[in-house]
Amino acid sequence: MAAVTAPDPVELAQRLIRCPSVTPAEGGALDELETVLGGLGFRCTRLTFTEPGTADVANLYARIGTGSPHIAFAGHTDVVPVGDTAAWSVDPFGGQRVGDEVIGRGAVDMKGAIAAFVAAVGRLLEERGGDPGGSISFLITGDEEGPSINGTRKLLEWMQAEGEQPEMCVVGEPTSEAALGDTIKVGRRGSLTARLTVHGTQGHTAYPHKADNPVHHLTRALRRLIDEPIDDGSSHFEPSQLQITSVDVGNPAHNVIPASATATLNVRFNDRHTSDHVLGWIRARVHAETTNFELTPRISGESFLSPPGALTDALAAAVQEVTGRTPALGTGGGTSDARFIKDLCPVAELGLRNATAHQVDERTTTQELRELCAIDHAALRRLLAP
Amino acid sequence: MAAVTAPDPVELAQRLIRCPSVTPAEGGALDELETVLGGLGFRCTRLTFTEPGTADVANLYARIGTGSPHIAFAGHTDVVPVGDTAAWSVDPFGGQRVGDEVIGRGAVDMKGAIAAFVAAVGRLLEERGGDPGGSISFLITGDEEGPSINGTRKLLEWMQAEGEQPEMCVVGEPTSEAALGDTIKVGRRGSLTARLTVHGTQGHTAYPHKADNPVHHLTRALRRLIDEPIDDGSSHFEPSQLQITSVDVGNPAHNVIPASATATLNVRFNDRHTSDHVLGWIRARVHAETTNFELTPRISGESFLSPPGALTDALAAAVQEVTGRTPALGTGGGTSDARFIKDLCPVAELGLRNATAHQVDERTTTQELRELCAIDHAALRRLLAP
Ligand SMILES: [Zn+2]
Ligand SMILES: [Zn+2]
Repeated sequence: MAAVTAPDPVELAQRLIRCPSVTPAEGGALDELETVLGGLGFRCTRLTFTEPGTADVANLYARIGTGSPHIAFAGHTDVVPVGDTAAWSVDPFGGQRVGDEVIGRGAVDMKGAIAAFVAAVGRLLEERGGDPGGSISFLITGDEEGPSINGTRKLLEWMQAEGEQPEMCVVGEPTSEAALGDTIKVGRRGSLTARLTVHGTQGHTAYPHKADNPVHHLTRALRRLIDEPIDDGSSHFEPSQLQITSVDVGNPAHNVIPASATATLNVRFNDRHTSDHVLGWIRARVHAETTNFELTPRISGESFLSPPGALTDALAAAVQEVTGRTPALGTGGGTSDARFIKDLCPVAELGLRNATAHQVDERTTTQELRELCAIDHAALRRLLAP
Repeated sequence: MAAVTAPDPVELAQRLIRCPSVTPAEGGALDELETVLGGLGFRCTRLTFTEPGTADVANLYARIGTGSPHIAFAGHTDVVPVGDTAAWSVDPFGGQRVGDEVIGRGAVDMKGAIAAFVAAVGRLLEERGGDPGGSISFLITGDEEGPSINGTRKLLEWMQAEGEQPEMCVVGEPTSEAALGDTIKVGRRGSLTARLTVHGTQGHTAYPHKADNPVHHLTRALRRLIDEPIDDGSSHFEPSQLQITSVDVGNPAHNVIPASATATLNVRFNDRHTSDHVLGWIRARVHAETTNFELTPRISGESFLSPPGALTDALAAAVQEVTGRTPALGTGGGTSDARFIKDLCPVAELGLRNATAHQVDERTTTQELRELCAIDHAALRRLLAP
């Protein structure tokens, strides 16, 4: 086996940032990774997935080794738009280093984390003469910041069809809050939106006994929904939260009792509930006030927990070794592709500090990139065969 | 003094209906009354009141006698529009009699009641050789169904300036419900509308602790407003009633907590409150949930009670004598010019059955017109000097 040379995580991050890969554009980022991973001995497969009504999306699956344990890294090279270019202090796709900082779109979400993991794998392969001691694969996708249809979801289907079955997976989303490695994410809350429409009987405000005011029923129902906690949280989750985001009656006549009233609810729910269960909880409370109502839900995602175990143990030990910190196992924040991967194998998310993600002058530091690379390297050593 | 001849209440009602006096048109109705009252010995004064931005309105003040007691009758000859003429079974301004019924716009609201009172006065003057035994006056106005600016309000100002001071006043609004004379009105509830806007802090539904949801504060405030009765009524009034007629947030983003939320309230309040007091009651309850709110009121009218006494006693006795019924002293329903007159002297409202008021085929019966005339006659005999 030919000798391998590990890439530098900072330089690789800079090269990836220079690829203008706003979803769904590939922008050269997959070409760059294919070149680097190919050089390290990975077998690379480019996969473009399509679906009517959505943009075609380019993805990359790369694997080295054939044996067990099989450790996967999942990340997306697509980035959100730069917004007001004039507000940036540098070219958002310039991949510039300013002092100790690397500034550019995708620096933390999540080209920096991809670069760190690739560099960590490179270092491991250098140490081990090209043999990982099992298998390592990269699941690099291109529409996480978009509709998430032609990326991870279809790549996982393809892997299943091809018999590609990792035993655990690290996702490089920027999970760190105040300091690198302070948070590893092991799940996500679910999210649903529901429109609640209560019907009554229209009438004149001077004769309320001849009418049945739906706004009053709705008010009482909503008050039940916000005054009773859905739950008090679980081991890895905060309490589920219901927010009334809008109430809309639209009655312009001050002396008319309207015929119906509508509210919109958004619920972030933990692993004690499915969306169906949450909807049942809502229905029961509304039903205590009125039977004449409709609840129209839209499910954005179910809650999930990827139970902590060998993967999170290895990541936490690696964080401890490199930074001296003990990471918290969290489930907060927005959605990520981990919700698809958790059906395949245990999954945990660990990446850079997220403070500037999606913002103008998104940036990380060279030190943070090198430390994340060291954490990934330490974790891989723990997870793969010695 | 010349002999007088009382007009027939049914024929006079028909003649008045034939005058197309949709507010603010006079339509010949005041001419008709001036002729009849002049023939009975009344001194008639035509008064046209004007105000920039409103239509000129013709009114009539007529008085017979100079002494005490001075009994007034107040009524309006203007009528609401006929609506869909094709839906009527007769010409709404034809003053037609069909069998026992008199059908036409204004038959019950309130040309019929004016005709009955004029005929009752005529009969009394016939009996008494033209001397009423005190004074009787007619306050006939032309914009009660309109803005109520250039009618009763200005006529009362004119009367005050002229030293015309009745001791009590009957208003001919159609107060009867199921049967003639079953209800005498002695006051009205007040009415106000208020917009309640609660402010909060906008945010993302995934991070509710970083926001302050104004919809939740508003929901709790509204629930306080509808769950606690304002009062339990008073001797002549039903309990005050608050209705939420609209709630409007207008937030289209299901994952955004809005910055503010607005509700519209309509309150019908009895004589235990002024509008200021009602607004204070609302403010105190909202304040218990949030201090960050605005309440913008619009007062449609204050509540009033014209305390029952000699006038209502005489009217009730007359109803009893003619129909055998004992009238209830009520305060329900919409507004009338009695709200202005109550500042001048005791006022009570008694008129025909109101079932068809403002409707297609508005109608009364010849029997009801004659009975109301008899009631008015019996009341006048009780109220005037023997
Ligand atoms: Zn991301
Ligand atoms: Zn009227």
